[in-house]
Amino acid sequence: MNCEVVAIGTELLLGQIVDTNSSWIGEQLAMAGINSHHQTKVGDNHGRMVAVLREALDRSDAVICCGGLGPTQDDITRGAIAEVMGVELVRDEAIVERIRAMFGSRGRDMPDNNLLQADVPKGATINPAMPGTAPGLICPLTGDDQGKVIYAVPGVPWEMQQMMIEGILPDLQRRSGFRGAIRSRTLRTWGTSESGLAELLDEEIRRLDETGEATIAFLASGWEGLKVRLTAKAADAPSAEQVLDRHEAIVRGVVGDEIIFGIDGDTMESVVLGMLRQRGWTLSVAESLTGGLIGSRLTAIAGCSDVFRGGVTPYDRALKRSLLGCPDVDAVSEEMALAMAQRVCEVLGTDASVAVTGVAGPDPLEGHAPGDVWIATCINGVASAQFLKLPFGREQVRQFTCIQSLNILRLQLRDLG
Amino acid sequence: MNCEVVAIGTELLLGQIVDTNSSWIGEQLAMAGINSHHQTKVGDNHGRMVAVLREALDRSDAVICCGGLGPTQDDITRGAIAEVMGVELVRDEAIVERIRAMFGSRGRDMPDNNLLQADVPKGATINPAMPGTAPGLICPLTGDDQGKVIYAVPGVPWEMQQMMIEGILPDLQRRSGFRGAIRSRTLRTWGTSESGLAELLDEEIRRLDETGEATIAFLASGWEGLKVRLTAKAADAPSAEQVLDRHEAIVRGVVGDEIIFGIDGDTMESVVLGMLRQRGWTLSVAESLTGGLIGSRLTAIAGCSDVFRGGVTPYDRALKRSLLGCPDVDAVSEEMALAMAQRVCEVLGTDASVAVTGVAGPDPLEGHAPGDVWIATCINGVASAQFLKLPFGREQVRQFTCIQSLNILRLQLRDLG
Repeated sequence: MNCEVVAIGTELLLGQIVDTNSSWIGEQLAMAGINSHHQTKVGDNHGRMVAVLREALDRSDAVICCGGLGPTQDDITRGAIAEVMGVELVRDEAIVERIRAMFGSRGRDMPDNNLLQADVPKGATINPAMPGTAPGLICPLTGDDQGKVIYAVPGVPWEMQQMMIEGILPDLQRRSGFRGAIRSRTLRTWGTSESGLAELLDEEIRRLDETGEATIAFLASGWEGLKVRLTAKAADAPSAEQVLDRHEAIVRGVVGDEIIFGIDGDTMESVVLGMLRQRGWTLSVAESLTGGLIGSRLTAIAGCSDVFRGGVTPYDRALKRSLLGCPDVDAVSEEMALAMAQRVCEVLGTDASVAVTGVAGPDPLEGHAPGDVWIATCINGVASAQFLKLPFGREQVRQFTCIQSLNILRLQLRDLG
Repeated sequence: MNCEVVAIGTELLLGQIVDTNSSWIGEQLAMAGINSHHQTKVGDNHGRMVAVLREALDRSDAVICCGGLGPTQDDITRGAIAEVMGVELVRDEAIVERIRAMFGSRGRDMPDNNLLQADVPKGATINPAMPGTAPGLICPLTGDDQGKVIYAVPGVPWEMQQMMIEGILPDLQRRSGFRGAIRSRTLRTWGTSESGLAELLDEEIRRLDETGEATIAFLASGWEGLKVRLTAKAADAPSAEQVLDRHEAIVRGVVGDEIIFGIDGDTMESVVLGMLRQRGWTLSVAESLTGGLIGSRLTAIAGCSDVFRGGVTPYDRALKRSLLGCPDVDAVSEEMALAMAQRVCEVLGTDASVAVTGVAGPDPLEGHAPGDVWIATCINGVASAQFLKLPFGREQVRQFTCIQSLNILRLQLRDLG
């Protein structure tokens, strides 16, 4: 069973709207154990829509066609599907009444152009879910494409999603005959390259290629490190989870928790907050280089306030002294970083702290090169510092320093046992 | 001239990553006046990649192939393109040295896997921009596809974008034979809806539809307000700029600078920093609700340090008193916001300040509802406050408060004349 997605809309091609619908549909198909090898975006053009749908049917058993079911002149999906099916559009009076009733329930008359939404390809049935005025269509193919199907859904996300869950996935499951389950698990890593991970996991990758009981994939997620994603197909959910448990253990054994900092929804911030919360410890930050970024990321997490008390951003050199009472030393130095970490713990009364000072660039500062960064942490009055020389641009220096400083604290908390 | 986009990566089909690259590329192509009728996503599978690339070349003159240029086993774009070109992969020693040098500059040895990135299809040239370790490829086709081209770029957005702007768009312009100039200008707005803007600009839009000398487009950019983009095609750049000047004046006259805060690369942060710099004034921030976000966004801008001195994040209520000497009043109140704005100016010794306190949510705080926010500003010792009731989720409350607080300061500085 193989199902692909066709997203309709010139605004998608122009980049005015990011096509999140296809991503959502793709994830649903994957979790349902249905293969999906292609996603296509095409504009509001009859000829191109027909051609794209025919290509999709050549490759796949089912096509989910998203968008272009509205009541306006550029909503031409119904006509394109009818041509691919080789049938006429016929007005479905039952749908007319349903749409009319919907407008009625909102105290409005149905505009005539909404009648267009009741014109459906002959032989099509209606998706059982109809949260809006646009009916979803289930369009069986005949002739050479006998047994294949096109599902048409509106581009409005919540309408599409309800039709997908209540109408399309059950129908696909029936057609596919797949009764099993698919589960995925993502390990978050920090501090190694994609090629480095691939080398470490080379043997495991080959083993999985042979047995095929699970797949492993590396996903770079911007500045946030690399994700290692394990996916298992099995007869039922518990067996799939067992396969994941076994291979997660293998991957953790090879890569180690110095590099693997979390799982699935974890972030470096949430992990560090969690470790501190377990101890009942509080955290403060002293940010020069990052200007508030570390605090901003920590406070993006709901419920952080039981751990994170606050921070100081002595961006101007004089403030390092006046706000924190740091000595009048080189602003980008081990001594300054250590003082910032220690003093912010004392001034804000926290058990732990992170402090960063350095040069984000692009220009040098007081004789220090862009990317020169000192990170210090303080736990129960004991401070330590590390120097980084980062070959990045300004924003990446800031982001990398933020995550790395929290990672240093994470490893120190881990080593406390 | 017709160029389509093929995004490579199983993670895109599985919905683990939303394909924002294709949207960005589509927008760039549209702005450059190059037709783009199809975008396709395909997984890391050699056969399917080859088939999709051949289909794309049947329809279009150029194909931008995004992703799969990394150093791991599942980065197979180079091989697929070579097969479509009907050539071998050959190792480019110059690229080997470039990649080795990049690792060297980061004090690391190049893993052997990265050698794969130096294997390029015979006849391909390298994109002039190479911000990362993955070279971008310009692959001319021969035979039946003579004159057509495949551009390969990495999936890492900032690498892809630099290659697109410096390498691909100029090459496409050359191939398209368009000798004229296309210029765009984007007006940044804050505080109005798309329908509101459309109403204000209704007459101008109709005028442009008739004369066709320029086009106007509204782009929602997430939380950052709406962009109004004017695009003009003319014989040469100066004439295009003149057309833009004329219509920018019309749009500004209708919409006004209370709503239009900047142009092109401006952000609310950069505009406020610029207005303060003109006066030789300094800025500080006191952030409770936003936890450092305002300072983080201000310091993301290179050269901010002549204006931005620093900030205090008294996230914990007690710190509002101990760090800033605020009175012991309701943490989410006008009195507290005013005190924070005034005190942070005094403690940090700045001419102006922004202070925010409120409830990001999802839970209420001390009897205040999520989304209840007090913003205060202080200019030369004179403070004023505004209350916001925001019907958003946690992150949007934080982001909106950040931009809105800076916008309040912008309007106050403007009114000082």
